[in-house]
Amino acid sequence: MEREIKFRTATEKDLESIVAMLADDFLGSKRERYEHPLPTSYIKAFEAITSDPNNELVVACIGNEVIGVQQITFTPYITHQGGWRATIEGVRTSASVRGQGVGTELIKWAIQHAKERGCHLIQLTTDKQRPDALRFYERIGFKATHEGLKLKL
Amino acid sequence: MEREIKFRTATEKDLESIVAMLADDFLGSKRERYEHPLPTSYIKAFEAITSDPNNELVVACIGNEVIGVQQITFTPYITHQGGWRATIEGVRTSASVRGQGVGTELIKWAIQHAKERGCHLIQLTTDKQRPDALRFYERIGFKATHEGLKLKL
Repeated sequence: MEREIKFRTATEKDLESIVAMLADDFLGSKRERYEHPLPTSYIKAFEAITSDPNNELVVACIGNEVIGVQQITFTPYITHQGGWRATIEGVRTSASVRGQGVGTELIKWAIQHAKERGCHLIQLTTDKQRPDALRFYERIGFKATHEGLKLKL
Repeated sequence: MEREIKFRTATEKDLESIVAMLADDFLGSKRERYEHPLPTSYIKAFEAITSDPNNELVVACIGNEVIGVQQITFTPYITHQGGWRATIEGVRTSASVRGQGVGTELIKWAIQHAKERGCHLIQLTTDKQRPDALRFYERIGFKATHEGLKLKL
């Protein structure tokens, strides 16, 4: 059966499906709170993202079902002669479609969209506890040229 | 002699000093264009940064001299229960003060500022060709838990 994946900006109605995907993950399960109703912090973040022209929360859908999510942030930098970059974060796909290439389509969509917005670079960090994710991004063409450093505040 | 370092938001008058620092670097020298007048792309990026409340270009000064720079981006994410993060990029110090702890003061200023803005995490990527930079950030408390992946567009 042909399936057609569509990509669109997330609406608040998608937020439960998005948090469900983020929580259904070996790292996400420790840090997310998939509850009914959703904790207010998710709603506030959603509002901050959607009111910022440099942030896009994108969902992948098959029919009415949300089966993937990613956030793309567009940032102007002085470095690289004042070049814009796209940063991808929070990429997840639904367990119902895992292994079917939905993740690849999501990232390829982000790459195309970043080109259209005039970015010279697209970047992301991936947890070293996810060796499969590293290989996944390398297959798409990303190079692990940098260390990704984090400090909890 | 006591020196006093002050931190402030960069103005357009600082831009030449900033680009000079970015270009005076073994990686930056290959990708920046420190020319008079500055290429327009730097001016445009400066305007995009300063008109965005979620981006701050910060300079460190001793007296009237600009001796350090960093850009801090504040991003709302759905992940981590809708937590905000700060991302540091383009950290450079002037050769005239290298080895005097200015870089450490810059980063500590960014950490404090990110706390004040309610971020739960501060992050950056550093090129694997800069092993000294990695050790520098680790001494401050950053953990290299992630791979930093880039794809040129």
